[in-house]
Amino acid sequence: MIVLASASPRRKELLQLITDEFEVIPSNFDESVSKEISVEAIPQYLAEMKADDIHKAHFDDVVIGCDTGVFVDGTMLGKPSSKKNAFEMLRALSGRTHKVITGCAILYKSKKISFSCTTEVSFYELEDREISDYIETGEPMDKAGAYGIQGKGSLLVKGIDGDFFNVVGLPVSELSRQLKKIY
Amino acid sequence: MIVLASASPRRKELLQLITDEFEVIPSNFDESVSKEISVEAIPQYLAEMKADDIHKAHFDDVVIGCDTGVFVDGTMLGKPSSKKNAFEMLRALSGRTHKVITGCAILYKSKKISFSCTTEVSFYELEDREISDYIETGEPMDKAGAYGIQGKGSLLVKGIDGDFFNVVGLPVSELSRQLKKIY
Repeated sequence: MIVLASASPRRKELLQLITDEFEVIPSNFDESVSKEISVEAIPQYLAEMKADDIHKAHFDDVVIGCDTGVFVDGTMLGKPSSKKNAFEMLRALSGRTHKVITGCAILYKSKKISFSCTTEVSFYELEDREISDYIETGEPMDKAGAYGIQGKGSLLVKGIDGDFFNVVGLPVSELSRQLKKIY
Repeated sequence: MIVLASASPRRKELLQLITDEFEVIPSNFDESVSKEISVEAIPQYLAEMKADDIHKAHFDDVVIGCDTGVFVDGTMLGKPSSKKNAFEMLRALSGRTHKVITGCAILYKSKKISFSCTTEVSFYELEDREISDYIETGEPMDKAGAYGIQGKGSLLVKGIDGDFFNVVGLPVSELSRQLKKIY
């Protein structure tokens, strides 16, 4: 059995592109990180911790852990804490290219594969009005970096370089290839 | 009123990212092309013809015409005519980068904007078995180039360079910006 250690409905939907036979058991891993890790290594580290957390009680299952971060100016943007914070994030992303990194870890018995997948995302130059209107749709509030590329956030994006679904939260294409190696 | 001159359910869904207020009136334009046009200019030409076809009876509406083509080795791939043909197309795309070009035309009264949007798509090296399994899902048969990047076809794709939704059939991000100029 495959176990997805994530509560994200978007990841659940994406994993269905690979298989319908899996169970969702979200990890309760406390997402604090030691400062000894470089910022862009955080998603893979957290993915490993989440997978490990569930793997303890599911040793004979294939456990998948994931974590997605938005990186700009050497910092990782999480989910916005307020509309004001969402505005600040989108202002920081406007007219530039940033990185979205999803870390994935697959644990099965004593085997482990973990990897990071990076996609570059270029935003149009945004007017304040455009940012405010987007925030009013309510879409940014539960999303890292304050946008959803698969929704109305798509209108802010000029183009990407890399895997699209990696930005949504699960690099299905690489994940399906890695799953075949372990399972 | 905005009129989408396309019968594609995927385009209808994507246009809803821009607005809910539009009507779908598919063009019956016969998709034959004079040989004097370069192959990569075909989508924009067809988009103009389709928009023009509907615009005649909807002069005071904003009419949007679109056409998407998959280009490899100097030829444009349409929808596959058979499973065998789908296999040949996917074999031709395997392990390489190809272009997807969507042409869009917007007509409003005597104003016209038309443009082409190009996205490069890189496929993994595919095994025959992988191609056959994908064809068996039924997904390729109604799609240019025999794959749907938004569905199980995503598992064949290593990455893209450009706008994702342009590959699905409507470059919503650029289209929304061009619509603001004309309307």
